[in-house]
Amino acid sequence: MKIGFIGLGVMGAPMARHLAGAGHEIATTLNRSPLPQGLTAKVLSSPTEVAEVSEVVILMLPDTPDVERVLTAEAGVLAGLKPGTLVIDMSTISPIATRRFAEAVAEKGGSYLDAPVSGGQVGAENASLTIMVGGAETDHDRALPLFQIMGKNITLVGATGAGQICKLANQIIVALNIEAVSEALVFASKAGCDPARVRQALMGGFAASRVLEVHGERMIKRTFAPGFRLKLHQKDLTLALDSAKALGVSLPNTATAQELMSACDRDQDHSSLVKALEALACHQLG
Amino acid sequence: MKIGFIGLGVMGAPMARHLAGAGHEIATTLNRSPLPQGLTAKVLSSPTEVAEVSEVVILMLPDTPDVERVLTAEAGVLAGLKPGTLVIDMSTISPIATRRFAEAVAEKGGSYLDAPVSGGQVGAENASLTIMVGGAETDHDRALPLFQIMGKNITLVGATGAGQICKLANQIIVALNIEAVSEALVFASKAGCDPARVRQALMGGFAASRVLEVHGERMIKRTFAPGFRLKLHQKDLTLALDSAKALGVSLPNTATAQELMSACDRDQDHSSLVKALEALACHQLG
Repeated sequence: MKIGFIGLGVMGAPMARHLAGAGHEIATTLNRSPLPQGLTAKVLSSPTEVAEVSEVVILMLPDTPDVERVLTAEAGVLAGLKPGTLVIDMSTISPIATRRFAEAVAEKGGSYLDAPVSGGQVGAENASLTIMVGGAETDHDRALPLFQIMGKNITLVGATGAGQICKLANQIIVALNIEAVSEALVFASKAGCDPARVRQALMGGFAASRVLEVHGERMIKRTFAPGFRLKLHQKDLTLALDSAKALGVSLPNTATAQELMSACDRDQDHSSLVKALEALACHQLG
Repeated sequence: MKIGFIGLGVMGAPMARHLAGAGHEIATTLNRSPLPQGLTAKVLSSPTEVAEVSEVVILMLPDTPDVERVLTAEAGVLAGLKPGTLVIDMSTISPIATRRFAEAVAEKGGSYLDAPVSGGQVGAENASLTIMVGGAETDHDRALPLFQIMGKNITLVGATGAGQICKLANQIIVALNIEAVSEALVFASKAGCDPARVRQALMGGFAASRVLEVHGERMIKRTFAPGFRLKLHQKDLTLALDSAKALGVSLPNTATAQELMSACDRDQDHSSLVKALEALACHQLG
């Protein structure tokens, strides 16, 4: 299949490589960086040209304004979109903006899926991403063979925007579970307990989580190199809180976790949220 | 071994039954209720008399004031304690009061372990409790054969009080994970997504937890019969926050979760915390 792939960063590059490796023809356009190593792709001069030669256009970009620009700028995707083309946005962006983008694509005769992922760089490289899809079932079925090349746990969550909503729900839970483990371990540590023993004792019961396992260990061993950068997680919580505000939903603990992130070094792994709690307690785990 | 067991409620009764079933001689004293069915035990008229005939005295009581009364009242355990007797408090109570109780027992020539449990009624009945122990290693080693009759995952966390601290850390994580799943599912549901599909999509990734599995399902299916009563969880968070205050540790999300519990029917399962978030959103999951 002729696939346009725009956004060849730490996530996009390995995803595109898997698609090319499975025999698909990749077209792309480059912003500042050169073509990633090991990827065979036709390099064109604009998103419009990419759209003109593609049956499916995949976007994997940092944030909502990037997707907006790539789609709607003068030399953007929409200007070159042929009827019947499927646009798949795999970035994590605003669910509200997502609905606007889907409408703009539909006006050009194309169709649109939002399909953000979780699993990070490791998941992208191992083709084991979780993919959360919003859109029409026929479009999902058309994209499924491509998703299966890049990921493992693929769910059609609902209509347009549902993929983004589901991804934000994921980011809420991960952030609040990190906050939970942080509060518990700082409390135990300040009370004179060895946090490693506490974590071990809690692993078998109802407190068990992937976050207690992975991020809890990072907090105890003080390994805060990313991983997933705190600033990206804060961006996602801001998206969630903006959407929640629009929907009339109050998310008190999400709001507090997002706020505490402002007191952290946001280029470190998101498990370093524990440092904000340590600062409040004037006491380190390590 | 001659074991005094005081507190034969929903947790204590099956625990004492397992000890009796393993051949230990149980002595007890009854408050209001009769001797639980299927338990063979010598019934004495006061905690003092129980202490007089026991090598080990186990307490399994609702809260700090209950333990204080059973230990220190006129006909309490301390009045009958022989030198060398081991007192094991398996209740979930204040870690600060625990240190006082351990000192009072030591003054009588006895020794003391705090050994609160998690796993609930089901864990007590299946002898699969997680047991978190604080105290001296020699006392832990002496109690270990008894713990192994009642539980599975047994950890000596640290000195006196460390068992209670660890249990409170457990309760912090479980409460905040319930809050996390509540905020995420109410957000997704209010945004028009099916919360069951969202939960399913998130089960394989970093949002995975026992709480997403068990309590998330309860929220979606609206099965709020306890389980673990919200009022007991709120009691435990209050203990954690009181201890944190004494230690100079700030636990912002624990404080909010505890506060939201006041707006719930506290005789329901703790997963019904989701209803406080639904009330804030004027919207139900079901």
